[in-house]
Formats: sequence, C-alpha cells, structure tokens
Amino acid sequence: MRAAIGLIGTALLATSSGLWAQEAQPAPSPGEIVAAAPRSDWRAIDASDLLVMDLAPDARGRARRVVIQLMPPPFSQSWIGNIRRLAAAHWWDGMAITRVQDNYVVQWGDPNGEDAAKAKALPARLHDTVASQYTTPADDVPLSYVLSRGGRGPARLELHPAPPPTPGYRGFADSYVDAVGFVGGFPMAVEREFRRPPPGVANAGEIVPTRIWPVHCYGMVGVGRNMSPDAGTGAELYTVIGHAPRHLDRNIALVGRVIEGIEHLSSLPRGTGTLGFYETPEERTAITAIRLGNEITALPTYEYLDTSSESFTRYLEARANRRDPFFITPAGGADICNAPVPVRRVPAG
Amino acid sequence: MRAAIGLIGTALLATSSGLWAQEAQPAPSPGEIVAAAPRSDWRAIDASDLLVMDLAPDARGRARRVVIQLMPPPFSQSWIGNIRRLAAAHWWDGMAITRVQDNYVVQWGDPNGEDAAKAKALPARLHDTVASQYTTPADDVPLSYVLSRGGRGPARLELHPAPPPTPGYRGFADSYVDAVGFVGGFPMAVEREFRRPPPGVANAGEIVPTRIWPVHCYGMVGVGRNMSPDAGTGAELYTVIGHAPRHLDRNIALVGRVIEGIEHLSSLPRGTGTLGFYETPEERTAITAIRLGNEITALPTYEYLDTSSESFTRYLEARANRRDPFFITPAGGADICNAPVPVRRVPAG
Repeated sequence: MRAAIGLIGTALLATSSGLWAQEAQPAPSPGEIVAAAPRSDWRAIDASDLLVMDLAPDARGRARRVVIQLMPPPFSQSWIGNIRRLAAAHWWDGMAITRVQDNYVVQWGDPNGEDAAKAKALPARLHDTVASQYTTPADDVPLSYVLSRGGRGPARLELHPAPPPTPGYRGFADSYVDAVGFVGGFPMAVEREFRRPPPGVANAGEIVPTRIWPVHCYGMVGVGRNMSPDAGTGAELYTVIGHAPRHLDRNIALVGRVIEGIEHLSSLPRGTGTLGFYETPEERTAITAIRLGNEITALPTYEYLDTSSESFTRYLEARANRRDPFFITPAGGADICNAPVPVRRVPAG
Repeated sequence: MRAAIGLIGTALLATSSGLWAQEAQPAPSPGEIVAAAPRSDWRAIDASDLLVMDLAPDARGRARRVVIQLMPPPFSQSWIGNIRRLAAAHWWDGMAITRVQDNYVVQWGDPNGEDAAKAKALPARLHDTVASQYTTPADDVPLSYVLSRGGRGPARLELHPAPPPTPGYRGFADSYVDAVGFVGGFPMAVEREFRRPPPGVANAGEIVPTRIWPVHCYGMVGVGRNMSPDAGTGAELYTVIGHAPRHLDRNIALVGRVIEGIEHLSSLPRGTGTLGFYETPEERTAITAIRLGNEITALPTYEYLDTSSESFTRYLEARANRRDPFFITPAGGADICNAPVPVRRVPAG
C-alpha cells in the first residue's frame, strides 16, 4: 500500500481526505504556490510606472541598477507627479546616496540639499505637497482590491475575500492598525469606523473603511522631509532596509517600492554620522541617472501577482502557516510585511 | 507670557497640566528616554555571556568585530552549551561567512559542513539537541520579568506591569502569538491557556502562561539545522538582517543577539547562489576567531536596559506612540521587533 502513494496523482489527492494529501505530498511553500500561479493571475507593470536608478559601477566594475514601482492612483499622487518631473528633467543625474542607517533606511538626493546656497534648483511647476495626503479616503479606493485579514478589537470585519477555511489560520492581525490589506500590489493599512444605521432603519449598522494608507515594509520607497508642515517634494527619497519602521506610517509619504536590485542599496557601507549620513563625500555612491522606465531601452517587463487572485490568497495563507517540509510548527498568522507581494520579470515564451 | 515658558523648569512642568507640558517641551523620543535612564536601570552583561566574532579586516584594513549576547537560562541551553565548547576549542577559527540572503539572514560556519569527507570534526562531548527545546515551560521562567503588552482574542491579560495610562496606547498586540514580552533583555512570545477553577472552587478560572520562546527580531542569532529531527549543533549560526522572519519562531533554536557590529554582517555582499549562499570561496568573508568574552583582553563592558524598569516601560510606550517633534500621528501600538532592547557600553565615570 505504501509504495502506491507515490503514484496517486494530484487530482485524485484533491478528493482524498486532508490527512492523506498531507502524507502523500508535502505542502507547497509560498514560493511554490507563486511559481504555480497561472499567467492570468499576474498583472504587468507599465514601464511608465517604473523608476530606474543606475548607480556608479561597484569596485569590480559591475553595473548596479535599482528598479522601483511607483504606487497607483489615488495614493501619494502629488509626490509621484513631482518624481516624474524630476526624472524627466534628469534632475538626479550626478546626485548620490547620502545616508545608510543600519536596520532603517538608505537615502538619496542632493548632498547639498540642506545648504540653500549650494543646493541644485528644483524643476519648475512642482506640486505643493501636504501631510493630509499621507492617507487617502477609502471612498477613493477600489475596495474590491482590499484583502483584509482580521484585525484587532471586537469587530473583525472580513473584507473581500474571506480567509480560506484552513485550520489554524488566524490571518494577518496587525500591531499598528485595525486592518490591513493590499491595493494594486501594495501593502496598505485600513482604518474603519462603526456607522450607526440611519434613523428609522432597523439594522445593526455597519463597519466601513474610512481611510487607507501604504505601510513601511522592507523595500518601500518614501519621501524625505524636514519638520512638519514640510511634507517633502519628492527630490529626497529613501528605501527601508531593515525591520518595518511602521511608526513612520501616516507621518511621511510613501511613493513606491523597490522591485529589483535592492541589494545594491542594502549592502552599502553604513554611514557613521548622525542618522547614518556619510561624513565625507568620498563615502557616497554616485547616482549615474534616474529615469522613468519608458525612457529606458530594453527594460524587461515586470509583473506582480494580483492581490485579489486565488493564488495570492493561497500565498498569504502559506506565509502565515508554513507547512513545507523544513517547518514543524506553523505560526497561524503573520504580519503584512512578512508577506511581500511577489514580483517577477515576465517569463519568456 | 510666552517668553517666560522657556524659563519654566522641568520640575514645575511636572505639576502643570499635560497640555502645558506638551506646549512647553516636546515629548521625549525613545532615545531620549533611554539616555535619561538612571544607572540603576541598567544591567551589566557578564563577559562570559558574550560571544565575540572577529572577521578578517575589510578592504581598507579596518577591523571588523561582532559582539553577541547569549541568552540566559533556561532558554536554548543545550545549544548555548555547545557554542561555549566550540568557542573554547577555537573551532570557528578559519571558518567563514558562507551565506548572505537579502532581507533574511547572514550565516557562518564550516564551508565544507555539508561534505562529510571534508567537514571539520566537532569537539567531543557536545550536547544532543532536540526540537522540543525550541520553547520553554513558563514555569521555568521568572515571570516578574515578562512584560506582556496586550494580545489577541477576547482575553487581554496584562502581565506585569500594566501599560502606562496614556491615551491612545494600545500596547504590543502581536500578529503571531497571543502575547509577547521580554525576559532578561530578550524579546519573547508567550503562549497562554485558560485554566478552569478546581472543582468546588467558585471563581472564574484564570489565564496562565504555558510556554515561552524567543522571537526572530533583527539581529537575533539562531542555529542552522538540516531537516527535522535534526535541530542543529550550534556550529552553524545565523543572524537576522531583514524584516523579522517570525515564521521561524518555534522552528529553529535562537541563542542570542548581536549587540554591536551587526553592520559588518548586514552590509556584506549578497550571495547569488540558492538561499543566498556564496557560489565561490573567494566571496566568503573569513572568520579570524570566535571567543567567549571572558577570553578577550580589554573588552568593553556592555549593559542592557532592564526590561522590568520604569525607564523601559516608558521606552516601550514611546516606541508605540512617537510624539517627538518629527512625528504627526502616533501609531498607538507597535510590534515587539520594533522595540529593540537598548544596549550600550558602560559609560565612563
């Protein structure tokens, strides 16, 4: 009997009991679920939504390219509009990585930005930016793309879709906000409130999303700023290279995330000055150019796993409950930054 | 009147209303709270509980030293016992950093460890290690050192001490477990269960901790292993250099954390092989020596902020609710890995 198990096909297993399936085939890892996702579950990223940063070659002459996906509307559009203008004006060419703080951020921009006499002039007609746009009204967001995974407090409203009914899966409860989800491939926090029914209507009221904002996970890209009310122009950017600094959520604008080449930033020498700024110009890494993807010749096409797809739902469940062979005790839950949205180059063929 | 505010001393402010205090002086940052902690809130780390790793000098000839604090009893003692023997035998001298995976781990040990014919023999009399010791019975742990910060589910038992009564502070709810806390300067997960009252006793029962285990935050050091039931000897070690991979909790042994010099590991070039292993020996960074701290001449004394101190409680609250001047919107909560236990060299004088 035992020898026959190896011959039982996957289709047959799906009709067997869960126990049998578990004995016969190891549970897929999150990576295996992503690798098996059908082409129809992937969404191409438009080249015009990519920001491509080329650094000076490394000590051994190897090219260093960092590719950033900009967030979709309606999020952070004043800053992203400015970033598009700065890239179109080739404003960053000759700028530098100025700060690398361990377990926190890598920052780039004008090394003379704090010195009004030496700072490079910004392009004309940049948008004004304001702190109120760190968050977005939920009414402006296509909620069918929001996957909420539990939350905190007595009301655990499940938005679309519900967690899969696997034993021990408690979802993505969050330490910072009531609910989290994904919009357009980006991790988001969701604030909700209880709305009483209108006078004379006999129902229990409902819990509705009110505001949504992107969250500071590893690789997310944000806009440096001075003390509020300054909200930053978009000329000074940073990316997260450590544990998610979620205390920055709602306190600073996020504009995208690194989808390729973050190792060229995260492995840079740490700065020894205050906040990890480099103390000498020689320590900085030069930026050769930053361009929008549609200005780059022969750029690969990138795609992300649709966060409303069945594959992504299974990926989330597997991130929260590792059952692939290395693991002994599945956690039952995870935090949103431990479930990065899969991105890949579009495979050939 | 306004000019006079600057003259009002701190002692006077403490008796004023909160509003006045807030207007007159910015709220302290977590770092400022730590800097102001009295000497009596710090606990010296015994040199014999430090593991000191010296790497080959960098390309510019600068020394690279990484200092690790080993966990106190009763946690992971079979592995830690082995690590003490390996260090005493100078077993790691000439070994190497073999793996650097971005946003995950740096691993070191015997580059030939997988090849039985070439692997370096381990010292005699190492302890056997078993997966059941990834967690520790709560009865074995001094619970007065456990600070629980909320949790998930209907029962939000607060262990010692309760969160400070500041508005909007919801504590450290966790995405992975029911409760979290600290023991001896290390971040811990706490599993709890409801115990019914004994027959004939008229009370509501109680929620009691059952098992406790350390969690995978940035800088934590763990023991590489092969597939279970192998639990690793302690000869193969890794540290976390990215977002907390909490899915590894209870699946692998943690033995300590890096308290100084992690930048020498986190900034290493990423490996391009499977799982971030280096593909050629030339890419590896050589380990000159690993020693217990009491074998090192002129090692500084390190100390950590007592996690049962009032200063640490205030630090936690400030990590969860940033009100220092840069911040606009305090989060109200945080995850345990976003509140690293402060460690410093004992200041002179």
